[in-house]
Amino acid sequence: MKDLEDHYEEMVDIRRYLHMNPEVSFQEVNTAKYITQFYERIGIEVRSNVGGNGVVAKISGEKQGPTVALRADFDALPIQDEKEVPYKSRVSGVMHACGHDGHTATLLVLAKVLNKHRNLLHGNIVLIHQHAEEYAPGGAYSMIQDGCLDGVDIIFGTHLWATEPVGKIQYKVGPFMAAADRFEITINGKGGHGAQPHKTKDAIVIGSQVVTNLQQIVSRKVDPVQSAVVTVGSFVSENAFNIIADSATLIGTARSFDEEVRLQIEEDIKKVVEGTCLMSDATYHYQYTRGYPAVVNHADETYLLKQIAEKIPEVNVVEESPLQMGGEDFSYYLKRVNGTFFFTGAMPEDSNRAFPHHHPKFDINERALLIAAKTLGMAAIQYQLENVN
Amino acid sequence: MKDLEDHYEEMVDIRRYLHMNPEVSFQEVNTAKYITQFYERIGIEVRSNVGGNGVVAKISGEKQGPTVALRADFDALPIQDEKEVPYKSRVSGVMHACGHDGHTATLLVLAKVLNKHRNLLHGNIVLIHQHAEEYAPGGAYSMIQDGCLDGVDIIFGTHLWATEPVGKIQYKVGPFMAAADRFEITINGKGGHGAQPHKTKDAIVIGSQVVTNLQQIVSRKVDPVQSAVVTVGSFVSENAFNIIADSATLIGTARSFDEEVRLQIEEDIKKVVEGTCLMSDATYHYQYTRGYPAVVNHADETYLLKQIAEKIPEVNVVEESPLQMGGEDFSYYLKRVNGTFFFTGAMPEDSNRAFPHHHPKFDINERALLIAAKTLGMAAIQYQLENVN
Amino acid sequence: MKDLEDHYEEMVDIRRYLHMNPEVSFQEVNTAKYITQFYERIGIEVRSNVGGNGVVAKISGEKQGPTVALRADFDALPIQDEKEVPYKSRVSGVMHACGHDGHTATLLVLAKVLNKHRNLLHGNIVLIHQHAEEYAPGGAYSMIQDGCLDGVDIIFGTHLWATEPVGKIQYKVGPFMAAADRFEITINGKGGHGAQPHKTKDAIVIGSQVVTNLQQIVSRKVDPVQSAVVTVGSFVSENAFNIIADSATLIGTARSFDEEVRLQIEEDIKKVVEGTCLMSDATYHYQYTRGYPAVVNHADETYLLKQIAEKIPEVNVVEESPLQMGGEDFSYYLKRVNGTFFFTGAMPEDSNRAFPHHHPKFDINERALLIAAKTLGMAAIQYQLENVN
Amino acid sequence: MKDLEDHYEEMVDIRRYLHMNPEVSFQEVNTAKYITQFYERIGIEVRSNVGGNGVVAKISGEKQGPTVALRADFDALPIQDEKEVPYKSRVSGVMHACGHDGHTATLLVLAKVLNKHRNLLHGNIVLIHQHAEEYAPGGAYSMIQDGCLDGVDIIFGTHLWATEPVGKIQYKVGPFMAAADRFEITINGKGGHGAQPHKTKDAIVIGSQVVTNLQQIVSRKVDPVQSAVVTVGSFVSENAFNIIADSATLIGTARSFDEEVRLQIEEDIKKVVEGTCLMSDATYHYQYTRGYPAVVNHADETYLLKQIAEKIPEVNVVEESPLQMGGEDFSYYLKRVNGTFFFTGAMPEDSNRAFPHHHPKFDINERALLIAAKTLGMAAIQYQLENVN
Repeated sequence: MKDLEDHYEEMVDIRRYLHMNPEVSFQEVNTAKYITQFYERIGIEVRSNVGGNGVVAKISGEKQGPTVALRADFDALPIQDEKEVPYKSRVSGVMHACGHDGHTATLLVLAKVLNKHRNLLHGNIVLIHQHAEEYAPGGAYSMIQDGCLDGVDIIFGTHLWATEPVGKIQYKVGPFMAAADRFEITINGKGGHGAQPHKTKDAIVIGSQVVTNLQQIVSRKVDPVQSAVVTVGSFVSENAFNIIADSATLIGTARSFDEEVRLQIEEDIKKVVEGTCLMSDATYHYQYTRGYPAVVNHADETYLLKQIAEKIPEVNVVEESPLQMGGEDFSYYLKRVNGTFFFTGAMPEDSNRAFPHHHPKFDINERALLIAAKTLGMAAIQYQLENVN
Repeated sequence: MKDLEDHYEEMVDIRRYLHMNPEVSFQEVNTAKYITQFYERIGIEVRSNVGGNGVVAKISGEKQGPTVALRADFDALPIQDEKEVPYKSRVSGVMHACGHDGHTATLLVLAKVLNKHRNLLHGNIVLIHQHAEEYAPGGAYSMIQDGCLDGVDIIFGTHLWATEPVGKIQYKVGPFMAAADRFEITINGKGGHGAQPHKTKDAIVIGSQVVTNLQQIVSRKVDPVQSAVVTVGSFVSENAFNIIADSATLIGTARSFDEEVRLQIEEDIKKVVEGTCLMSDATYHYQYTRGYPAVVNHADETYLLKQIAEKIPEVNVVEESPLQMGGEDFSYYLKRVNGTFFFTGAMPEDSNRAFPHHHPKFDINERALLIAAKTLGMAAIQYQLENVN
Repeated sequence: MKDLEDHYEEMVDIRRYLHMNPEVSFQEVNTAKYITQFYERIGIEVRSNVGGNGVVAKISGEKQGPTVALRADFDALPIQDEKEVPYKSRVSGVMHACGHDGHTATLLVLAKVLNKHRNLLHGNIVLIHQHAEEYAPGGAYSMIQDGCLDGVDIIFGTHLWATEPVGKIQYKVGPFMAAADRFEITINGKGGHGAQPHKTKDAIVIGSQVVTNLQQIVSRKVDPVQSAVVTVGSFVSENAFNIIADSATLIGTARSFDEEVRLQIEEDIKKVVEGTCLMSDATYHYQYTRGYPAVVNHADETYLLKQIAEKIPEVNVVEESPLQMGGEDFSYYLKRVNGTFFFTGAMPEDSNRAFPHHHPKFDINERALLIAAKTLGMAAIQYQLENVN
Repeated sequence: MKDLEDHYEEMVDIRRYLHMNPEVSFQEVNTAKYITQFYERIGIEVRSNVGGNGVVAKISGEKQGPTVALRADFDALPIQDEKEVPYKSRVSGVMHACGHDGHTATLLVLAKVLNKHRNLLHGNIVLIHQHAEEYAPGGAYSMIQDGCLDGVDIIFGTHLWATEPVGKIQYKVGPFMAAADRFEITINGKGGHGAQPHKTKDAIVIGSQVVTNLQQIVSRKVDPVQSAVVTVGSFVSENAFNIIADSATLIGTARSFDEEVRLQIEEDIKKVVEGTCLMSDATYHYQYTRGYPAVVNHADETYLLKQIAEKIPEVNVVEESPLQMGGEDFSYYLKRVNGTFFFTGAMPEDSNRAFPHHHPKFDINERALLIAAKTLGMAAIQYQLENVN
């Protein structure tokens, strides 16, 4: 993996080129072409338009062994770049504000280096360049439908993480990133004069009971060793002080890490609303919209990743990550094959330039690209070595 | 009505005789015979076994006019008389602890006097001696079924009221005494270990929600100008601290003055229980047991009564009664014909002898008998006079 | 009172003049001058600027007897008149949409007629022309402070009631019109990410609990024989679905008929909010703004009014009014002297012209003016006759 | 560790002797004497009466290295042995129904074998025989106070687990067994007649609100990535149906794995009760009684244990344990030094003889003793080897 260091500048160049030329989810045509041509140029087998704008390349190792997939997403966000740097976005209102440019640069250069040494590889390496991670339903699912995991034994992926310092790798066995869903409840009561409650079905009272009763889902219905959140973020029923509300709208989010818990929450919210409305003969409309499923890492692959990370010279902290409440469609790959998703610390050194993901001034520390490339590459090689038969 | 004063001692004698020979509800055979023979002796038409042990007598006035019913109940209570008086109950464990002995004596003597003057009566007087007021389903309903109100235009009744002083008459237009019902709710959840709520249906949480949600019946569902009460008096789910309750039992009372409100409460409790259980997939058993309906006095008859009362020399206070939360099956008569039910103050003068109704030392001030008789009698006569055609 | 019929057209003329020249509360300068001049012209003692724009006139009866006050309010509303009638308001955006023009015309002409017959009056008649009934704090209180009830023994007042037919008089002993107050509660929690409730104080959950807990005020804290309402009419906490609310605002109304109950509700709301916030270490702001107190009619005066009404030829229905949840500052007079306030049916015959009070097309049936005048006048005369000494 | 196999019968003999001679917590005098004499007999340094009936022995390794403690508890339970086996308890009403006899036999024989090879040991081995694990406050804390961990670098302990098959070892990094606490809340309201809620402070309504409001602790106040349970297991307020409850008693349990969460729950319950009572001016009594703290295993020592377990020939399954809601005072040792506590499967082969812990027919599969001894012994040796300097 020493070779990677020699290609560090190329990695940075590619990343900056992509940073200046961002494309939003599902419209990443030029980025896909850029990736495809990169592989064609260096003679790696590549397939375009996989499940949309996705690109899949494949390095065939000369020795026998398992097939390892590495994944990088390449879409940008509809955010105006407000940084003042030479590689600032040249597209108005579009920006790589989540580091996917770095993911792509990392994987391209890593592929180039691995390809040089394919005589040493015990099995194949599949490079999955995924479009549309930022916007549901995402690109992962359709790429899988289009065969991107066919023949793959295992998958690794990383996210450059700008809120953790360079040199840190965070891993997590089992549930890692949440399924983050949205629900909307409209209570349809019957309005009336504030002094005549008996002629009405008070939507504010019903809605308030719904909020109170929803608390039981986490406190009583969900297994206490599971993590789950049910939050009503918005409650609106705006009227004059002396009337009784006709309707009320509650909007919220449900988070979970386990598919059964997730299904249960969706069903339990419905039961709470249904039962509460029944008490007052009110009706309701309930909509539960799923985000991506939870990212659930496999144990053995995660331990392997952890051990590899501890051996990378540039890595000085390898630690268990807390549960992350954000979502990722990497979850779909892990539902199909074993693997692990981890965070590579990428915080800019100058704290004035460190901003959270999706911030208009977001940037990454490019030194993290090398670490990400080494860790992914070493993990792939080590997995192949340990699983030759 | 001066004649009544001459018969005061007879009234007292009868009352004391009955006081010494009490019979509990539905077993008042000898009392009924006593009443029947009284009427036979003085030549008033009488019918026995009306709807049970009831007795109905009739004085035919010699002039044309409406038929007025006067009612007195005559059952006693299964209470041990603890007073030390010469007329103490001679039946162990049975006692006139509510004054029905007085009601009967009043009506018998009043009938005797009215009968003497039946040449002056503009219409008939029907004397309803009702058994079984103390114990649901009561005697009133079956006596009505058996014809005791046939031909009756109007009805008056009074209760000797031992917590108000002699000389006071309390009247009330409209709702006067409550319908007092009982309900029992059993929540059947699913028990389990206190640390594993997700495997259970927590009956204590469900029961607690039921109690909380029941508050809305009075606050939101009942017309605010109506009086109603829904009280859970007992909540029992006794278990070890570290388990989750399998079931919980809630027992309570509902009070109302309006039949629609009463029906609504019965139904609304069910809805609250049903909706709350639905939220947790729990089941329930709900039983609502009706006491007597509310006593609702008619306006014109009540005003007439009030005016009459103000003219009785022995009466010094005529006032509106507050709503009474106790029940009375006089309500059934008022659902069939117009009329009014009122209280005649009967508190013993010696405050050491004044006890609430149903108390083992309960007694009445016998001077109240004369007032009750005068008021009932004058009301009947006045009504006939005012309604000759 | 036959004379009144001869002045019917004058009444209508005055009413229409006022209707065309409305002035909003506290700005009724010209209307006050009009009233004052009317009295000056016919030689009735009059005092202007009583407690503001109020006008008080006095007819001195030639015989001994009590002083009876009659009250009419004369302010209009900031509503655009949308009727198409010759007497439509000539002031843009201002309109007599509640019938106070009719009240004033009634009282002026009644005074003129009574004044003619003052040789027959057993006592004085005070004519209270009140400004600013529509807008708190109202004119009644300040007029009383300025002496308008000095020497007055009793007061009568009526409201022309456009939702009841002409020929109906509605009376009510005791509580009649509600104290209608307003409250506003702001919950100040602590916002945050929807997936991290433990770092927040969820204002929506707290607000919902407040609403739920407020139900207990009516169901448990207020005497069940009292009428009271506590309604939250508006609940607003609008945010993105995936955040936890920082604050929530609840606005509502409290209605009651008894001053103690009213004070208790104000205090109980505070306790509910305080206790609920305490559970989550949240803070709150609570404001309770009083409208007028309840109108509570005195019994004897109301019976007298009822009896008088039944004798007015044009009146065909005299009935008890249900409790009215609207407010009136006539309540202040009744807290100082005995009296009664009643409704005089004034619904236009053409149902296409019948609209509720405060409606832009509101109008009254002018025949009601005569009925109102006769009833008020007869009640005053009768009271004096019955109370000569 | 081959030697251990040669001592298997001795282990069984000791275990059966102890099983026939059980002593309840804090009264284990003879058991302690038995242990002490065992060590004296084989020449291992031993100290009695450590923090009560505790016994601590020490094997001094001949080479330099860390000191490893191994712990076994030895108290029995006040349960009547209902098994029919030759080694059935000979003490009426007392029984080793949790396997502590097996723990003790395991540790004694393991010590004997290790002592033989002390020339090979890189450091010392401390044998902690703890009294009173079953009954709070337990023996661990007082033994630590009395120095049982002085000089100790690390500790291992195991529980024979009769609900998992022989051959399985369950480990868990971090929180493993819960802190299981008890709370009791008495609501002191003000009783009264069921029809007069306004004169009372309804303890059932207040208690029900407390239960409802407690749900928020887990749903809103505790970090969702933490596991916690708050259960009310008992709610008692037993009264006649037509009265309002004076008081209500709620008893429950709180479970947590993190000390901060535990403290927070104790405090949050108080806040809920305080705030809810404040709403009704009621008072309360709240008592929170702590059980043992949570058992929190250290990561490195747990991984070491896992790796060792995988090498024991008799072990065929090494798996992560789910969180356990039961408690153990092994937690106190882990708060002082690093180490890990794990489960050794010990289910009887005949499923008719397999019963849960604390059951009157509880028994263990004695083959598990050998596995426990090997795992503990190998873990100690391996730790010393890896940590010579």
